[in-house]
Parts: sequence; structure tokens; C-alpha cells
Amino acid sequence: MQYKSIDQQDLDHFRLTVGAGQVFTDQDNLREYSHDETEDLSYLPEAVVKPGTAEEVAAILRYCNEKGIAVTPSGARTGLSGGALPLFGGINLSVERLNKIVEVDERNLQATVEPGVINQVFHEACKAKGLFYPPDPSSWGSSYIGGNLALNAGGPKAVKYGVTNAYVLNLQVALANGELIWTGANVLKNSTGYNLTQLMVGSEGTLGIITKAVFKLLPYPKTNVLMLVPFASAEKACEAVSAIFQAGITPSAMEFMERDAIDWTLRYVEDVQLPIGEEVEAHLLIEVDGNEEEQLMKDCEKMAEIVERFGAGDILFADNDNDKAALWKLRRRVGEAVKANSVYKEEDTVVPRAELAKLLKGVKEIGAEYGFKSVCYGHAGDGNLHVNIIKGHMSDAEWKVDLKKGIRKIFELVRELKGTISGEHGIGLVQKEYLDIVFSKEELNLQKQIKKVFDPKGILNPGKIFM
Amino acid sequence: MQYKSIDQQDLDHFRLTVGAGQVFTDQDNLREYSHDETEDLSYLPEAVVKPGTAEEVAAILRYCNEKGIAVTPSGARTGLSGGALPLFGGINLSVERLNKIVEVDERNLQATVEPGVINQVFHEACKAKGLFYPPDPSSWGSSYIGGNLALNAGGPKAVKYGVTNAYVLNLQVALANGELIWTGANVLKNSTGYNLTQLMVGSEGTLGIITKAVFKLLPYPKTNVLMLVPFASAEKACEAVSAIFQAGITPSAMEFMERDAIDWTLRYVEDVQLPIGEEVEAHLLIEVDGNEEEQLMKDCEKMAEIVERFGAGDILFADNDNDKAALWKLRRRVGEAVKANSVYKEEDTVVPRAELAKLLKGVKEIGAEYGFKSVCYGHAGDGNLHVNIIKGHMSDAEWKVDLKKGIRKIFELVRELKGTISGEHGIGLVQKEYLDIVFSKEELNLQKQIKKVFDPKGILNPGKIFM
Repeated sequence: MQYKSIDQQDLDHFRLTVGAGQVFTDQDNLREYSHDETEDLSYLPEAVVKPGTAEEVAAILRYCNEKGIAVTPSGARTGLSGGALPLFGGINLSVERLNKIVEVDERNLQATVEPGVINQVFHEACKAKGLFYPPDPSSWGSSYIGGNLALNAGGPKAVKYGVTNAYVLNLQVALANGELIWTGANVLKNSTGYNLTQLMVGSEGTLGIITKAVFKLLPYPKTNVLMLVPFASAEKACEAVSAIFQAGITPSAMEFMERDAIDWTLRYVEDVQLPIGEEVEAHLLIEVDGNEEEQLMKDCEKMAEIVERFGAGDILFADNDNDKAALWKLRRRVGEAVKANSVYKEEDTVVPRAELAKLLKGVKEIGAEYGFKSVCYGHAGDGNLHVNIIKGHMSDAEWKVDLKKGIRKIFELVRELKGTISGEHGIGLVQKEYLDIVFSKEELNLQKQIKKVFDPKGILNPGKIFM
Repeated sequence: MQYKSIDQQDLDHFRLTVGAGQVFTDQDNLREYSHDETEDLSYLPEAVVKPGTAEEVAAILRYCNEKGIAVTPSGARTGLSGGALPLFGGINLSVERLNKIVEVDERNLQATVEPGVINQVFHEACKAKGLFYPPDPSSWGSSYIGGNLALNAGGPKAVKYGVTNAYVLNLQVALANGELIWTGANVLKNSTGYNLTQLMVGSEGTLGIITKAVFKLLPYPKTNVLMLVPFASAEKACEAVSAIFQAGITPSAMEFMERDAIDWTLRYVEDVQLPIGEEVEAHLLIEVDGNEEEQLMKDCEKMAEIVERFGAGDILFADNDNDKAALWKLRRRVGEAVKANSVYKEEDTVVPRAELAKLLKGVKEIGAEYGFKSVCYGHAGDGNLHVNIIKGHMSDAEWKVDLKKGIRKIFELVRELKGTISGEHGIGLVQKEYLDIVFSKEELNLQKQIKKVFDPKGILNPGKIFM
């Protein structure tokens, strides 16, 4: 792909559109906006542009579309698939200034927000009114709603409440041609034309830039119980997951962590202490929530019986807010801890829930065959296993060339188990070479043609997903 | 649009593809497949073709695409927007022989079904294994899963559990060009490419023909409580709906019925008796479900307090299966009863829940202005009001010309309230002239271009939605 380089005239135009102080070309800013949280990858944009309104986003897109300038939309840049990397230079269009919670509508249990609002900030604003926005990716303290939408982010609560797309009713989107559209209506059910809302969610900024989102909300559940369950066998832990759901219980979180994941995180997060028996190979972190404590305790008793059948050790109940926060801190920071420990690659595999044990076993076997070590953790209730492949003592050649064959094997296994290669991180840059494993030529072709409908010149987030 | 007429050679080819006994050209069959449940509309196909497998569906499409023959896919033909009417002749491709429940997977709480399975049959098959497929349109005793997907059907339980699209994980689809694709994977979360699954749901057979669907299921709730609440004011009933949700209760059904709706249905369904006070103007039929009776009773007490504030009369509790079935029969058959009573048009308006009272008031005012009477009922918890406009004493000219202005006014009101023109019935044939009210030119243009990607020759369900 060929894109126009940015010149002084372009910069002048950008400054006229978004304000002189909102266009950056200094090295510090270019470097800052050259990366997200994906491995150690970095691609410099030629300029960083920070519009303050939907109309300004649209105007910038219209101009870039006319001129053929590459536009990489970015949010908090916490992504793990390289979706915010400006591969072809051009501008990094940051939505960070579109950070208003426009409305939390208590009458309708709905909220309207801009894409630059931090997930947790939005969550707390809803909670203050007794309302619940469930999607809670591990990055919720920093990631933006816009990024969550672009990647269809999940998080622990997805197992009971669904991922981001389950809450979106309507989106305002700036198209490549500079038009602003709404994708739907502010309603709970909609049978009016094609579902452009869901087409936009998970499209990783390749079809348009989301400038406003209308979400449905739930009543905030009054209480919850959190328990940490150790297992001597990681595979047995995975099998227990499926058994709990089959027993008719729907936990509000069902997280899996291998021994290494928790050990490394305990060293990384120094203020949390947790004695772990030598025999422990994995943990499940299980939460149930609702309005009646008594009912939750009954569910916990039932789950305690079930996990015992799978060889669980002593269950740790977190019975106050501090203990709960400490356990969640452990879980949420596994990713960072692994990253701090070694160069690594994270694969975001997802399979039908009951196939999790097979997936884990397969990943370890493939690792043995191809000579890599992995640390696995993730949202077991959704069958979503994050496989962190550790560079360790691998040579650069092994890491860059041979490893790809191993990853391909893992994804082929995922496909065999009727799963897919990304559950919540997206394809972005780093997974796109594996798309042929899960999509036929025809399936890819349809997606490429849809891309052309929205972005005929290919200016929007070029080089991502399948371009 | 110009389509090729069907000749002997085409019929021979169809017979070779699907079997000689599965292609029909006799008048009885053509008449039978010329209509669905929409008003008194009828358009004859030139042939009815009944493939028995996904591959046969694909083969028929490939042939028709090459020859330029119009294909109208049909299911149980219970639709209310004219989606299954063969406007341009050609073939009516019925999926009735694709009627297998391929698998109910208890390990993964998933099921795979063909499009010709009746909703209730699927529901019962899941229930027999303790699993719950919630979408339950009023037509559930006859409508097919394929049609439910094509229209993104709702039903009473949608208010707590969501509509059809909340349960679809993956679809096998026959494209116009004769290719068979899968739109996703059998997983609970998916961030791998564009969401073709949700693009297909609600596309009314204009983008492809669904030949298999993979659904997620829930554990079947153990118990429920059903109550019928009379109100002296229909608007107050609507206001009570919103108050109940604001109090943090999520009923599993929240149905609204105007006085006439229930009176007419009582006359139509002769085996249900119900004494109704003279002052009653509307009813709410409210269900809560869950696993603990005690919790449900608490919710009911709370709701009783709330509805009292809105002037509710004596609440009728259905405390056994027979009474529950009788009340549900009343609700489910309102549509038929209205139809039996008079020529009518049904509008499927949907607005944010708290705007329901405003919508109802507006509909009555518009009716007074344009000289029509309406009977309103529907899924109040979702803000989905079915407005049945009764022909009564209107002249044919008033009915066919003037009424359209009134309907346009209603839809403009819906739009003002941030709602849309169909919540669960689809656009099909009869609503398409109103699409400009809710979509801008740009928004319509995107949808038309997506249609072109999937069906460049326009053979699939021509004349529907926006063609």
C-alpha cells in the first residue's frame, strides 16, 4: 500500500481542524504513540492528531481520505495484538480527548459515552447510580471504552454477563469519507436493517472510528463471594470448570491460573501474600454474584463438592473487600508479571468450554515438541486461555522463525476443537498471518469486500486484520 | 429488477438437485407458498423447491445465481412483515426439510440445529436435558429457528434473556454464489475478524440462506411466578414498567395488553375465562424466574408495592401450571385474535423502555388525528409496542393512502424517542417505504453495498428491506 507522506500543508490543515495545540510531531510524542502493549513492537507515526469532537474526527478522516494519508486510530494503547501500531506512518488519531460520559440514564438503564473514557471510570460512574456495566478487561483501569469496542473486549465477568458487544445498543461512527452515522437505535431489540452496530464492534478501527456509544446497563448486583481453589493437576482444574456449569451454576467469574502465573505475579505484586502448597499446579478463581448472600453460599457449597471430585485442595474464601481486592489484583496483573519476567508472546486461544483441558494438554505437548515453555491463564469459564510463550533460552532464530510453526500448531488444535484464534485481544498485526487457519478463502474475501465498502482507499488502520 | 422466468430445463435441474418429489409447480402449492402471515398479501412463486441438505441449498443458489432466477427463502411463513413473499416469482426455497436438531451438547451448553426446526420443538429438546433456549416469539409453536434468525425474533423472555442474536455463536450459510461458509466459531467470545454472524442475523434472507446454527444455552431456571396486573390507566401501566426495572428487578417477562387486546382474545380463545373489572384499561403480565421460589416471592412483593403506586387493581397470581398456561395462551394469541376481528396492519414499534407511555399516548393522538383505531400490546419491558391498526369503518382509499401518513407520523415519533420502526418483525416488504425515517442516505447506502458484496446479482429475497 502507498500512502501520502505528511507535509507542512497537511499539518496546517490538521491544526486548523483540531486546534494548534492538538497536533504533535516532536520525537517524544511520536515515540510515545508508536507502540501499544504488544511485545516490543514500535512503528513511528508522522504526526499525532487529537481531535476533541466527533465532527473533528470526521473532518480529519475526510481530509486524509482525499489525500490518501494513513490513519491509525488509537485509544489508551493497551492492546495486545498491535492494533494501534501506525505501520505505514501517517497520523495516529488519538481519541483521548473524547472522554466525556455524556449521560447515565437511570430511567432507561442506558448510558452514552465517548470512546476516550476509561473502562473503570465508566463502570464507577454507573455504579454510583446503582447501575452495572459488566465488561471488565484486565486493563480496565487504563483501557478505553473505544478500544474495548474495537476489540470486543471481554474480562472475567464475561462468563456470566457476556463481552462488550452484549451491551452496545448504538454507535456513532465517523466513516473514512468523513460522514458521521449512527449504526442503530437506543433500543433493546432491533430488527431494522443490517446490524451495522455489531459489524463495527471488533472491527479494530478498520471500518470507521467510533465517536459515541450507547450501552444498556443492568442493576448492580448487591453482593458476591470470591473463592480461590488450588488443584494438584491443571487439567483436572479445567475439567472442574465444565462440571460446575453443567451443574447449573453460572459463576460471575471463573478464572484459571497455572502455578507459574501465580508465582510470578506474587513476586511482581509485592504487597499480596499467599501461601501455596508445593503440590499445587493450578488455581481457579471463582466468583458468584447476586442479590442474596444465602443463595450465593448455597452455590459455593455445591461448587466445593464439585471441585473436590477433581482433587481440589483447601479453598480460600475472600470474605472482605480487602481480601477480594488482593485476589483480583493477583489475577489482573498476571499479564504484566509475565511481561516483566521475560520476552514473551501472548496467544489468545478460545475453545468451547469443555475442551479446555484438551487445549491445555495440547499446548504443553506442542511446547515440548517445538522447545518452548508457556505460562497459561485466562477466562476458563469462556474457554478463553491466554497462552504466554516465554522466550527464555530460545535463540533469536528459534524465537522468530521456528516458534511460528509451534504457534500454527496450537491454532490448528484450536480450530480442531471448534474454537478460534482470538477470544478478546483481536487479530491486529501479530495474528494476521494465522487467519487462514480459521477462515476459508471465501470467508476472508467477504470480509475484505466489506472493508472496501467502508474504506475504499484503505486509509483506516492499514495493515491490520487481513490487509 | 429483471429475473429469468423458470422453464422446463430449470425444473429438471432443480429435480436433479433436490429429488424429483421436492419440486412443486401445482397451483395448490404455489398458492400455499405465496403468502406468510402478513395482512392478506399474496405473490405466487413459479416453483417451490425443498432441498434436504445444506449442500443442496448451496447448489440451488449457485444455479439460480448463474441463471438470474429470483430466490425467496422461506421457513414456516409465520412472518408479519412480508419477508417470505415471492415478489418477483422465481422459486420459493423452503427450508422445511432441514429440520434436524443435530446436537444438544450438554458438556458445552451448546446446540446445533437446522433452520427448519420449530422453535418450541428445539426449546423442549433442550429442556429435556436441563438446558434453556430462551427466545420465544409468540409464534414459537410454529415458527422456525431459521426464520427466527432471519428476523432476529424476540418474544416475552427477551426482556431478561435477550433476543435470538444473543444466543447465536456460529452459522453455516449458503451464499448466492453457491459457497457454504461458517460465519464464526463455536465459542462464547470471539475477536477474530468481522462479525459475519451478527450481520447474517436479522438480514431477512437477503445475504444468504442459513443452513445450520450453533447456539449457546443456559441452565433451565427451576421455577417462576406469573402475575396479571390490571390498571385503570394504560399510560400508568407503561410508567409502572420502567419503575420496576429502576427498582433493580429484572422480570423474565413484562407484557402489556390494552383492554381491547384482552377482550378480543377472550372472545377468540373460548376456553379461558377471566373476569375483568369495567374500569380496567390495560394489563401487565409479569413473570419472574429463577432457582429460588423465596427470592421470586420477594421480587413479587416489591413489584406489588410499585404497581400500587401507579393505581394497579387486584393482582391475579397464577400459582399452578394450568393457570400459567391459560394466561400465556391469552397473551400469545392476541395477534391472531386481532386478525380474526378485522382487517388490520401491525406496526412493531420499539423505543427506550421509559418512553413507552409517551409512545402510547402519541399513537392514540395520531389515531384521533388520522381517523384510525388501534389496539396496542407487546413486550413492554423492552419498549416494544405492537400497534395494531384496525380497518374498521375506514374506506379502502383511507386505508391504502391516508393511513400511510398516520403510520409515518407514528414512526417519526418513534424516531424522536430514539427508537426504531421494527423491534422483532423485520422490515420485509411492508415497512420498507418508511426506512428513510430511521436511516440517513449514507446509512442506507452502506447497507445496500453490503448486500452487493454478498449477492451481486440481487437474486436473494429481492424486493425486501431496501431493494
